[in-house]
Amino acid sequence: MGHATTLPIGFETHPHHYKHWKLSVDGPIATLSMDVREDAGLSPDYRLKLNSYDLGVDIELADAVQRIRFEHPAVRTVLVTSLKERIFCAGANIMMLRESSHGLKVNFCKFTNETRLAIEDASQNSGITFLAAINGICAGGGYELALACDEIILVDDGNSAVSLPEVPLLGVLPGTGGLTRVVDKRRVRRDLADCFSTLAEGVKGKRAVEWRLVDAVHPTSQFKDAVQKRARELAENSGRQASGPGITLNPLNPTVTESAITYSAVSLAFNREKRTADLTVHAPSGPQPASPDEILRAGDQFWPLRAFRELDDALLRLRLNEPETGTIVIRTEGDRDTLLAIDRTLVAHETHWAVHEIILLMKRTLKRLDLTARSFFALIEPGSAFAGSLFELALAADRSYMLDDPAQESFIALSPMNGGRLPMSNGLSRLQGRFLAEPEKAASLVAGQGRFDPREAAEAGLVTVAPDEIDWDDEVRLAVEARAAFSPDALTGLEANLRFAGPETMETKIFGRLTAWQNWIFQRPNAVGEKGALRVYGQQGRPEFDWKRT
Amino acid sequence: MGHATTLPIGFETHPHHYKHWKLSVDGPIATLSMDVREDAGLSPDYRLKLNSYDLGVDIELADAVQRIRFEHPAVRTVLVTSLKERIFCAGANIMMLRESSHGLKVNFCKFTNETRLAIEDASQNSGITFLAAINGICAGGGYELALACDEIILVDDGNSAVSLPEVPLLGVLPGTGGLTRVVDKRRVRRDLADCFSTLAEGVKGKRAVEWRLVDAVHPTSQFKDAVQKRARELAENSGRQASGPGITLNPLNPTVTESAITYSAVSLAFNREKRTADLTVHAPSGPQPASPDEILRAGDQFWPLRAFRELDDALLRLRLNEPETGTIVIRTEGDRDTLLAIDRTLVAHETHWAVHEIILLMKRTLKRLDLTARSFFALIEPGSAFAGSLFELALAADRSYMLDDPAQESFIALSPMNGGRLPMSNGLSRLQGRFLAEPEKAASLVAGQGRFDPREAAEAGLVTVAPDEIDWDDEVRLAVEARAAFSPDALTGLEANLRFAGPETMETKIFGRLTAWQNWIFQRPNAVGEKGALRVYGQQGRPEFDWKRT
Repeated sequence: MGHATTLPIGFETHPHHYKHWKLSVDGPIATLSMDVREDAGLSPDYRLKLNSYDLGVDIELADAVQRIRFEHPAVRTVLVTSLKERIFCAGANIMMLRESSHGLKVNFCKFTNETRLAIEDASQNSGITFLAAINGICAGGGYELALACDEIILVDDGNSAVSLPEVPLLGVLPGTGGLTRVVDKRRVRRDLADCFSTLAEGVKGKRAVEWRLVDAVHPTSQFKDAVQKRARELAENSGRQASGPGITLNPLNPTVTESAITYSAVSLAFNREKRTADLTVHAPSGPQPASPDEILRAGDQFWPLRAFRELDDALLRLRLNEPETGTIVIRTEGDRDTLLAIDRTLVAHETHWAVHEIILLMKRTLKRLDLTARSFFALIEPGSAFAGSLFELALAADRSYMLDDPAQESFIALSPMNGGRLPMSNGLSRLQGRFLAEPEKAASLVAGQGRFDPREAAEAGLVTVAPDEIDWDDEVRLAVEARAAFSPDALTGLEANLRFAGPETMETKIFGRLTAWQNWIFQRPNAVGEKGALRVYGQQGRPEFDWKRT
Repeated sequence: MGHATTLPIGFETHPHHYKHWKLSVDGPIATLSMDVREDAGLSPDYRLKLNSYDLGVDIELADAVQRIRFEHPAVRTVLVTSLKERIFCAGANIMMLRESSHGLKVNFCKFTNETRLAIEDASQNSGITFLAAINGICAGGGYELALACDEIILVDDGNSAVSLPEVPLLGVLPGTGGLTRVVDKRRVRRDLADCFSTLAEGVKGKRAVEWRLVDAVHPTSQFKDAVQKRARELAENSGRQASGPGITLNPLNPTVTESAITYSAVSLAFNREKRTADLTVHAPSGPQPASPDEILRAGDQFWPLRAFRELDDALLRLRLNEPETGTIVIRTEGDRDTLLAIDRTLVAHETHWAVHEIILLMKRTLKRLDLTARSFFALIEPGSAFAGSLFELALAADRSYMLDDPAQESFIALSPMNGGRLPMSNGLSRLQGRFLAEPEKAASLVAGQGRFDPREAAEAGLVTVAPDEIDWDDEVRLAVEARAAFSPDALTGLEANLRFAGPETMETKIFGRLTAWQNWIFQRPNAVGEKGALRVYGQQGRPEFDWKRT
């Protein structure tokens, strides 16, 4: 991948190990303060000046947001600010972007987007409101971080401005949803958004409020008090229901070898010669926690929390550390009935804060899979455990193959978890998205018989195809081989389009439209060529452009 | 631009001059038959074998659809087929794509997309149903043309299939909405769409119906009769109300010089050194047709039809022939009251077929502007005619500047035409899109006072800024100069994102998502590098890919 980062990248961390953020919790208010260590980037090739960030900084932010949800049920409001004087955040580090490969840039943006969306998910679905307190320089990705918060307060010191200087200074787009959130979330008028996004110095003071770019400004002398006051108000008005002890998220401790990453419930084994990997999820067996108390006692060892955290970590490692592995074969194994019992427990107690958070984490992990630019084929064989929540893996896959061998019992099973509790980015359940042509079908399948043998599954359209035991090996092998031979870029575009039929949301706009344009621009000589804007920024000389508009 | 096409390209044609299509009209049924002349491409560098097409072929198709709407009011159904034995259409010509510059590829796809959407517009809004009769090979863009039709009948000859072979054979995406229409319009299940879009040989016969790829198949012996029968049924069930004599669309005959294109109501003057152009629309004066009869008598000389046809032609020439002209300054001049009177006539008679068609053409032209990858700044000066329909030009612009000079009378005016009759691709009026933050405002402005002087216009948010006469020259000059200095690619991405806030439609998905991905892929070495799939297709050797997934 890039020169700028040493692989493999790890995605686990803990507040005790943070280099760039301070997380402090004071009753209902958590404060997340950015204080980036210049010399602690993922690569020694750049310095993270002015609270600029690289992937390592964002991994800590993602970890903090996750921990606030699970470990700090009393928190109602998160104050996002900076410990550096007159600097909030200067955005993604330009040197890092300049030195990164195209793939690393794209995956970096994808992860930062997912982190911003996780902040919005915590707000919308868990009632944790986020307040950005902008105490100084707030440019590019710094403002995009603020845009992900519910409210933005900007210091009015005659100098501090919010800005998206990517177009005028770097010849690229804001890479983390900035343009979309300006016009779609904050509903800034499009011509003002145009002015704002082409003004390198940004907009400050009263005008920033008038243009809807921030919610309030306060002079330096009143800034801290105003922020604290507003944080308390937001905390008081929060809809969060959580209380009591939290769930500690302990390290996953996978066994990592040259050819596999093995967790407790998930394994990811690489066949690098064929550019494929086997992703296997193991269902649990035996009695499982059945009440909120038992779940809290099990903590992060409760199977769905454990398995989906592992799956999430595996997907991130796959994306960043295994760029040439293009086709992922998904399998499950274990006790379907235990899975269905767990799903029943989740649904029965879904209003309990911890269960609610677990379901939301499962949802985010499955979205991560939807948004992973690799081909996924699910193989449903006798002994597999594609039931309920785990059947979402087959629904998320680009195709699913179910072996129809009359000699062996084999079935897939639906549960109420397939009925809309794990929606995609477009707001639809995967079953709804699958059956756009038959709007009633998803609900009736979930309400119906529940289990499907291979022929029933194929008949119902729940699997792509159900070959018999004579055809199985050849059909599956040829499908995987054919896939692995196609252009990786064309597959990425194909899957990004076919996976998200139906309605659009801010989230699908960010990943489907904004990201696609950014990918294009990131590739163009006007950005990354010898004289491209991203390359010459901060150096001698000005960019030289090919002036053709496309 | 590309090697493959000689500039400038002209966009006007007439059935008498068609080289590639035959248009015949028989009562309520028009038949559009593709019969591409191999040796009559826009460039001699490629041959248009197997009914493959280049931009010239599509210009004729667009012309035919437009003429059916205006010149043939009796037509209810259009049968789209081919005169070549066992060949419907092989899609966009690969040699042409291979030899074309990136910009030409992108603009070619944009135009073909607009043509397909014009077909769907004729169906949805004019009640003209389109029936694709696929008599043989139907690949890539050939199938995408069929997808734009209301119904698809495929011959069942054991051989003829529909296919989207772009991913498996060429390493690019179907460039004309194919993936989006498969899953969003025809609602093909996403896993079947995945199989279909990776199967070079496509899907034929009964399976094509089962997968919802076509509506019916008929054996060769019954094909022609079944197609004719279905065309008659569709014609009988059409909702089209038009009748009587049509409106002949005569040539526009602009005066073209090295530095300007001058039509009767529109002029486009180039300042190539600064990479800007001045687009000026001249409002008419004096009495205008006020009834459908008078409008029919005026025919294509009725001002809105004439002016918007001219504007459309100017935009197309700008896109294809003037790639380095990045910033367009829009002005209007003439009699605002006459414009408002015309708008009143249009609204009063909007149910008359001809008036209805004129309004729809105005809508499509304004959409063409929204989708033109150039920066548009509207300059509203005393004596300008930004009223009603023409004010949409200012609303479509990325920014608008209105001179606030107390010494001169100056105002902009709204009419009911601004109230939703000229929607954008996302279904919103430009006023609604502008005021997303105030959902009631668009309607109340249209219902309200109607005219706004510079301060009122700025106050109401109808213009971006209203500088006074002291600041005007500098502010406008600096804005245009700054714009012209930015990265062309970044501006394209910026505008594509900011112009379309709010809801998404199949149309915005095609232009915003599918197109963006295609632009990216078109740029990648895996497609266009020395060993890229698009480059080596049909030649010795196989493509060589960089296997990294991004």
